[in-house]
Amino acid sequence: MSDTSRIRNLALRSKIMSAEQAAALIPRGSNVGMSGFTGAGYPKEVPLALAERMNAAHARGETFRIGVWTGASTAPELDGALAKVDGMEMRLPYQSDPTCRKRINAGEMEYIDIHLSHVAQFVWGGFLGNLDVAIVEVAGIREDGMLIPSSSIGNNKTWLDRADRIILEVNSWQNLALEGMHDVYYGTQLPPNRKPIPIVGVADRIGDTFFRCDPQKIIAIVETDKPDRNSAFSPPDENSRLIAEHILEFLAHEVKMGRLPKGLLPLQSGVGNVANAVMEQLQHAPYDNLTAYTEVLQDGMFNLIRSGKMSFASATALSLSPDAAEEFNRDAARYHDKIVLRPQEISNHPEVIRRLGLIAMNGLIEADIYGNVNSTHIRGSSIMNGIGGSGDFARNAWLSIFMTPSSAKNGGISCIVPMVTHVDHTEHDVQVIVTEQGLADLRGLSPKKRAKVVIENCAHPVFKDALKEYSEMALKYSLGHHTPHILEEAFTFLPNWQANREAREAWKEDSVVQADAWK
Amino acid sequence: MSDTSRIRNLALRSKIMSAEQAAALIPRGSNVGMSGFTGAGYPKEVPLALAERMNAAHARGETFRIGVWTGASTAPELDGALAKVDGMEMRLPYQSDPTCRKRINAGEMEYIDIHLSHVAQFVWGGFLGNLDVAIVEVAGIREDGMLIPSSSIGNNKTWLDRADRIILEVNSWQNLALEGMHDVYYGTQLPPNRKPIPIVGVADRIGDTFFRCDPQKIIAIVETDKPDRNSAFSPPDENSRLIAEHILEFLAHEVKMGRLPKGLLPLQSGVGNVANAVMEQLQHAPYDNLTAYTEVLQDGMFNLIRSGKMSFASATALSLSPDAAEEFNRDAARYHDKIVLRPQEISNHPEVIRRLGLIAMNGLIEADIYGNVNSTHIRGSSIMNGIGGSGDFARNAWLSIFMTPSSAKNGGISCIVPMVTHVDHTEHDVQVIVTEQGLADLRGLSPKKRAKVVIENCAHPVFKDALKEYSEMALKYSLGHHTPHILEEAFTFLPNWQANREAREAWKEDSVVQADAWK
Repeated sequence: MSDTSRIRNLALRSKIMSAEQAAALIPRGSNVGMSGFTGAGYPKEVPLALAERMNAAHARGETFRIGVWTGASTAPELDGALAKVDGMEMRLPYQSDPTCRKRINAGEMEYIDIHLSHVAQFVWGGFLGNLDVAIVEVAGIREDGMLIPSSSIGNNKTWLDRADRIILEVNSWQNLALEGMHDVYYGTQLPPNRKPIPIVGVADRIGDTFFRCDPQKIIAIVETDKPDRNSAFSPPDENSRLIAEHILEFLAHEVKMGRLPKGLLPLQSGVGNVANAVMEQLQHAPYDNLTAYTEVLQDGMFNLIRSGKMSFASATALSLSPDAAEEFNRDAARYHDKIVLRPQEISNHPEVIRRLGLIAMNGLIEADIYGNVNSTHIRGSSIMNGIGGSGDFARNAWLSIFMTPSSAKNGGISCIVPMVTHVDHTEHDVQVIVTEQGLADLRGLSPKKRAKVVIENCAHPVFKDALKEYSEMALKYSLGHHTPHILEEAFTFLPNWQANREAREAWKEDSVVQADAWK
Repeated sequence: MSDTSRIRNLALRSKIMSAEQAAALIPRGSNVGMSGFTGAGYPKEVPLALAERMNAAHARGETFRIGVWTGASTAPELDGALAKVDGMEMRLPYQSDPTCRKRINAGEMEYIDIHLSHVAQFVWGGFLGNLDVAIVEVAGIREDGMLIPSSSIGNNKTWLDRADRIILEVNSWQNLALEGMHDVYYGTQLPPNRKPIPIVGVADRIGDTFFRCDPQKIIAIVETDKPDRNSAFSPPDENSRLIAEHILEFLAHEVKMGRLPKGLLPLQSGVGNVANAVMEQLQHAPYDNLTAYTEVLQDGMFNLIRSGKMSFASATALSLSPDAAEEFNRDAARYHDKIVLRPQEISNHPEVIRRLGLIAMNGLIEADIYGNVNSTHIRGSSIMNGIGGSGDFARNAWLSIFMTPSSAKNGGISCIVPMVTHVDHTEHDVQVIVTEQGLADLRGLSPKKRAKVVIENCAHPVFKDALKEYSEMALKYSLGHHTPHILEEAFTFLPNWQANREAREAWKEDSVVQADAWK
């Protein structure tokens, strides 16, 4: 049910209209900045109505496509719907929708994969062209016309500041108790006028609890009452639990060696099963008053806050399971002094990340024996999602940890490879690699020593011999011996070895069958 | 001639000894932090004496090697001498000595290539082990025992703070007028106690003009009188001039489009011929009061200061030609309010670089059509020098420009390739690529569009067709079409094409000879 009382500025009520009417105000070929970060706070009706309009246009033989800029990933009602009707000319800076991914990898739409901390700066700098329209979900509009943010902030401040025209979705499903939980920093500047960002602790508030917004730019307000995507929480699997165990053991060792304070340092954590497993195990770890400075607050971290193990979390989005969202909504006021949501240019700002000294934990697609990490591409050419904030955090953290199961596709593919097919994090930015097999601490190691410890500690037993074989072959035949490689085989050695292995095993089975037949 | 008057603290004069005596105090197996950055301010006698000692030990069949940590590259008297006697077990974070390079690539010594801004943090964090000895060149010692830095700062503050024992070289060749030109920031902390670094303009002074030093830790003082490496300045060649022209045209265009302020932004520039060409052309460009926030002040930039075109430069090292060094030494006091030298953790600090909004210009070894850059490796396995500060600057700059001649080895090798054989700067960090052929502005372009503009604008004509051919083949046969690649041929396509081309041309010549013979 929509709830007009959320639009407390009476003058703005005249802008209320249907999603269809609002969608009709978006010109074809526009660049549209949409709210939304990891399935939280994205507009839920206008993009659907726009997709309808595009579909009709395409049916008439006309082209109707737009450029879509967001915070990060959204949901089927946005990326999914627009991708289905082939309505996106270009998409940035991060997405995870399957239809969208399919179109990108089929070469049917453009995708620009940008560090999340760079987006606002690129837009302000005019590097990405004009921002024609913003479509931003909010939890409400104050009497003074200022906007109450919803469950994510992402790039909304930038969209509202920079767009020529603004369409708001006022979503009654979003808890009004969110009001006061945000910290929207208005001190950013273009060089040469930039000043230090005055955050020295994760809980520091440096901005407003609302978005400033020029009411003249608002062309439509659409009332909605729809839940965030809110994927169900799946409990950690065995591999995730093992990875988390290795990480906790490592952190304990770092504390013991005096390389981490007793209470650790603020945590940053990517999304997903492994991240949740780490948070779950922290419930029982000997650290109190944990803190987080991260992008997305998921169930694992939320549970740490509920239990009192974590005293404060800074993020740019609340991305909870339906159960956790219900719990949050029941008791939102309780979390006001435990959670702050910031613009992603601040949650991911190199300056703040470096200063706070984070423990950064991010996933990957494949890592190579020398410590280079591929976070984005399958076999070097197909995009999976995007780099997101992993580069902002990995480069600037105190400890940069990358984690992955050692194999994928039911053990058919090794996630540790001779050479990654795409590099998102270079050997200079990766300090620790963890799989369910173990942990490789690469700090202070030359490439050859890294290769040894990555293969020994992280590779899946099935692939260990093959990786050693490549490594030894490279040592023998490489042109240079700083980072030994056989370029001709770097990408094919492991798939070939695996194919041979499967052929050998098939042959062995055949032999057994034949031997049985001859008995 | 040595000059004991430079050691104004009388108590410390008791520590004066010969280089041989000082070298005898360095235990085998030590980690030794040495001063030195781009051939400026490195110790000039103790490493030579140490090399003698190592040589004698090796002749007796004993092993005598150490770990060497510096600011960046040094000189034949340090890296060269120690490498010649196989005296380095391990070297970090950047070097450019040919003997050293040969040993690394022969697999005879370890090398750890680290972002220059990370070194101090890694050492303070204990990630690289204990620092046993520091050998630091200074221009003098004050009455109060504080040290007057010489022509570079690099990591000296960190070495002096962290080393168990300290050996000083007091070099009378260094101009005493350097006193007051340095800004050594003592406000750094380990997390969670870090505060903003209070630099908001390139000329801001936030620290001391001297190094603090615990006199108890000083075990030796050696007096020297030797010049810095000071390579002769070679005037820009034709390619460098063309690259510089493209860059200046681009900057003018950015100003016109309102994406750069009229007076530009602070410049960062890597070292070498192209960098000097850019500075030379800025002499005649319509910008006044240029500023720089960079690592190394070379002749090109120094000339801008002399002529008054540049009002201020911040760096961590003065690396001048003999002629420019003479000019500087003649008139050093004049440059006191125009030049500041800072620790490299500050000159390269992500926080400050991002805040100041630099125009960063760095060289490369090869760039690929999708905008990934290799700054360090030949054919993926042999190290050239190291990443240096290029990552610190490229990731955090307002504009990140990479520049290179389009071909190397007399035109035999293309510097634009289908896929770089090593990645130091990812597609996410490279905004502009320039060769003598032209400039590719990659901002806001998807990978396929980047490939078009890089091939069209930057590739050498000889290789353009081959790169297009690879690109078209990849478009046809790639598994995914986001970043089209044929992994099996990504590294071999161009060398094979080139070999075929040479064979074809040889065949053509043969045909002519034969045809002549048949006339």
